[in-house]
Amino acid sequence: MRIGVDLGGTNIAVGVVNEEGRILHRLSIPTRQEKGFGEVIRNMAQLIHKVVTGSGHTLKDMKSIGVGCPGTPDCGNGVLLFACNLGFHKVPIREELQKYIDLPVYIDNDANCAALAESVAGAAKDVDHSITITLGTGIGGGVIVNRRIYSGFNNAAAEIGHMVIAVGGEQCTCGRRGCWERYASASALKNQTIAAAADNPHSLINVISGGDMNRISAKTAFDAAKKADETALRVISDYTKYVAEGLVNVINIFQPCVLVIGGGICAQGEYFLAPVRKYVKESVYCKEAEQTEIKVAEMGNDAGIVGAAMLGLG
Amino acid sequence: MRIGVDLGGTNIAVGVVNEEGRILHRLSIPTRQEKGFGEVIRNMAQLIHKVVTGSGHTLKDMKSIGVGCPGTPDCGNGVLLFACNLGFHKVPIREELQKYIDLPVYIDNDANCAALAESVAGAAKDVDHSITITLGTGIGGGVIVNRRIYSGFNNAAAEIGHMVIAVGGEQCTCGRRGCWERYASASALKNQTIAAAADNPHSLINVISGGDMNRISAKTAFDAAKKADETALRVISDYTKYVAEGLVNVINIFQPCVLVIGGGICAQGEYFLAPVRKYVKESVYCKEAEQTEIKVAEMGNDAGIVGAAMLGLG
Repeated sequence: MRIGVDLGGTNIAVGVVNEEGRILHRLSIPTRQEKGFGEVIRNMAQLIHKVVTGSGHTLKDMKSIGVGCPGTPDCGNGVLLFACNLGFHKVPIREELQKYIDLPVYIDNDANCAALAESVAGAAKDVDHSITITLGTGIGGGVIVNRRIYSGFNNAAAEIGHMVIAVGGEQCTCGRRGCWERYASASALKNQTIAAAADNPHSLINVISGGDMNRISAKTAFDAAKKADETALRVISDYTKYVAEGLVNVINIFQPCVLVIGGGICAQGEYFLAPVRKYVKESVYCKEAEQTEIKVAEMGNDAGIVGAAMLGLG
Repeated sequence: MRIGVDLGGTNIAVGVVNEEGRILHRLSIPTRQEKGFGEVIRNMAQLIHKVVTGSGHTLKDMKSIGVGCPGTPDCGNGVLLFACNLGFHKVPIREELQKYIDLPVYIDNDANCAALAESVAGAAKDVDHSITITLGTGIGGGVIVNRRIYSGFNNAAAEIGHMVIAVGGEQCTCGRRGCWERYASASALKNQTIAAAADNPHSLINVISGGDMNRISAKTAFDAAKKADETALRVISDYTKYVAEGLVNVINIFQPCVLVIGGGICAQGEYFLAPVRKYVKESVYCKEAEQTEIKVAEMGNDAGIVGAAMLGLG
């Protein structure tokens, strides 16, 4: 068994995970990063003790601790170099955690952990090469090569959301213009829906939102499109194209056996995915070769803990 | 020692290569693919015998034969699935070649071979992860992960030139619009130069070409820009931006230790590369992490033979 820690901006979630990637016991507490890094790690260590005890085991039964965190890690040294939404800068997670618990500690980026979880126990189980893309506030990417995380020579790879698909296009937070996540994240869909609603006062989108732009979410256009609202259908059609164009880039570059898509939008199921698959099939470069399978993420909220625990596989 | 074969649309080049990636002896003959695949492979086998004898060795001293070819290979079965400019379709290279020579035969795509050559003996020697990009008629890409070719689950990966950077942009031969190679290949630069010359009759480009658009090459704009021609300077500046935007995408996705650039344009040296490096440095996503080094390809015409020979390393 291994311990997986999902260190997020809101909560710290800890689980005891078996070798098949199943969580045997879990607990979570608020992160409270305002207390400072030392306190956060001390709370994390206490929670680990509690979860291990609660699982009916002891630390001696555990092979390793893995910590998945936002931002850019230095995996070799177990240091979190930079995590904007935690306000952490060069934080020695391994060293600090080992003050309390004598186990090997591994750290990695949360998007990489999600990809590893899908590879070990989820939608990309049993294949060597997979990519997991999460359509959320931004677009998270994790690359699995030969069943292990590929993160480049500096642990900073797989920033697939920051692949420009529209040179000179929309301004991105990263400083460039036209990044994929400006067009294909859940936030982008929400913004596209708000803009379309403003331009088309008679659209059903405005009925659903009660005319309140703050009530428009990434789901609103889907709801209106399913009732045949033309504005919403156009929003979804354009959004589908943006998602698919990025996926085709990823496939042309990586040709993963399985491409896993996660994020709330996947709740739309085939209504969203069938047109994406069609667009991808018609657009990929190599139509003679065997084709990448596009699947929905299966690990859901378990991804962070399971992926982090599996970092210990090496 | 190993045998490397560079099967091109014009010539078949064969070399005996030592373990350090140095060519000990080489010869080439015209491909003459119009004679059909059986004859091409028979000529290839004869040439191999000749080169081995000429090197002062025998086939017993050779560990393997590697064949680099255009198009899409089925590496596992040693079959060339599809090669447009050879007119070959599902050609069993390994099986056919082993009718004449009893050695293990490996095949792979020529862009992958070039990347492997740079990794074993060229600009990316001594690093685990590298990417080689060749700016030619199109853009060739080869991805090296842990010193081996990464080509996805179906051998069709690394089509980096067919990464869309301008959604809805210029029509590409692959069927999509806005592929990187439409903007950043040597052919693209030539076309951009021709268009700029037509729009600006007083540009030095037209003096250099004698007003004959057929005499404009990928080099012409560089020649005029170095003499401060404003039109040419704008062409080179725009082209540099297109090259760099694609390279930044590649770095954000792969974070290779070394990114190797090949193709005739590299003859421009730092005049071309310094602005590319500057643009990349300012644009990459992760500025805190160690940065990818951008280098010029070192293997030149040897890349095909050396990379093919090294396929036998496994």
